Amino acid sequence: MPSIDVCYSPELIHLYDLKGKAVVAVDILRATSTMVTAFAHGVAQIIPVMQLEECLTFASQGCLTAAERDGIKAEGFDLGNSPFSYMEGLEGRTVAITTTNGTRAIRLSEDAQEIVIGSFLNLQAVVQHLVNLQLDVVVVCAGWKGKFNLEDTLFAGALAERLQEDFSFENDATLASLHLYQAAKADIVKYLGQSSHVKRLANLNIHKDVSFCLQHDVYDVVPVWQQDALVDVRANYKLA
Amino acid sequence: MPSIDVCYSPELIHLYDLKGKAVVAVDILRATSTMVTAFAHGVAQIIPVMQLEECLTFASQGCLTAAERDGIKAEGFDLGNSPFSYMEGLEGRTVAITTTNGTRAIRLSEDAQEIVIGSFLNLQAVVQHLVNLQLDVVVVCAGWKGKFNLEDTLFAGALAERLQEDFSFENDATLASLHLYQAAKADIVKYLGQSSHVKRLANLNIHKDVSFCLQHDVYDVVPVWQQDALVDVRANYKLA
Repeated sequence: MPSIDVCYSPELIHLYDLKGKAVVAVDILRATSTMVTAFAHGVAQIIPVMQLEECLTFASQGCLTAAERDGIKAEGFDLGNSPFSYMEGLEGRTVAITTTNGTRAIRLSEDAQEIVIGSFLNLQAVVQHLVNLQLDVVVVCAGWKGKFNLEDTLFAGALAERLQEDFSFENDATLASLHLYQAAKADIVKYLGQSSHVKRLANLNIHKDVSFCLQHDVYDVVPVWQQDALVDVRANYKLA
Repeated sequence: MPSIDVCYSPELIHLYDLKGKAVVAVDILRATSTMVTAFAHGVAQIIPVMQLEECLTFASQGCLTAAERDGIKAEGFDLGNSPFSYMEGLEGRTVAITTTNGTRAIRLSEDAQEIVIGSFLNLQAVVQHLVNLQLDVVVVCAGWKGKFNLEDTLFAGALAERLQEDFSFENDATLASLHLYQAAKADIVKYLGQSSHVKRLANLNIHKDVSFCLQHDVYDVVPVWQQDALVDVRANYKLA
């Protein structure tokens, strides 16, 4: 039986051996939720990059560029990090995106055999993909500037809950994530109302984004890292 | 109102600004529980060191030496890391100790204005000391080889629960710790029976140590870092 483990911060990723494993990269508010939304609305590829300057250079290759820093759209870019900006006019396009935490989680996971983009929005699609893969799983939480955050942890707990029949877990981070999710799931929006990042976003007047990103099983896309870009492998996965 | 925050691993400590703050260093199983037990039984000073070799050199200065690696007493040392070894014959002695995780948490916190040794055994004494200090608090969990662990997190939650009237906390790590402690506290031994470290210790046949270390408010010692050694400031604190 494959196992599932949770890494609470990109700063801890060196403690995990990712080789031969599947990483689920998660940044619920909002990078991975937004990426999933974009694929559900026809984006062809997403290129995650670490730096603003590097991201801008993709404009000359016909890409849309997207950047968020500290919760708001960065100047000079086509798109920010709100999922509502990714719902129309993006069919077939490639988006180069850099975000505070999410891009970092993906880029630091490149040792893994597979990197899947996870969010509550595509939770069941990710569950099914992982069951099909039969690889050991490490959920890599983007966190907040390297620190633990609740929303990514709750996602890890939701994933553990749905995988518990098919995957083993004995490590404390997965147990804690599961217990926190079970305490939160009856009203996850209210539960996260206490959290620091949700308060930061509330101050930026984006309640709507938070509620949207916490919905479960809205889309069945499975964004996966392939040759320097994320693509949706939903088609392959439906054949599997 | 001062604040309380929680750092889940020594590997994350660079993300916290410890200057002017009080650190509570915690390694429930078993380093800080054992240190607290030793002070309650008359030890004069404890010198935490990182390396086995360095620790052994203290023998020539009349110190007792103590070392644990991966849960068992290291060869050539006077003492291991079981609290039951620290209950007699230690009055007035100095103990040089190196442990897998706990020593590291203390040594990496040296930027702080005060470093206090916390455990369930001296929980209320630590609470009272922190209320008296009126400094911002960061609980530094030793974790397990850099990773998150449940028992140190539950201690952080217990501390947050008792400090919540006098300290603010908005960060997610403290909230998660508090929620986990509130779920666990009715039967903390049973709750931790699922955890990886407790299972490791159970394999080493030291159930007795685990139950002992999870008892609340047994001792009123307050070990504090002073000039390269830990000393019990209980006397000063009682005068405060």
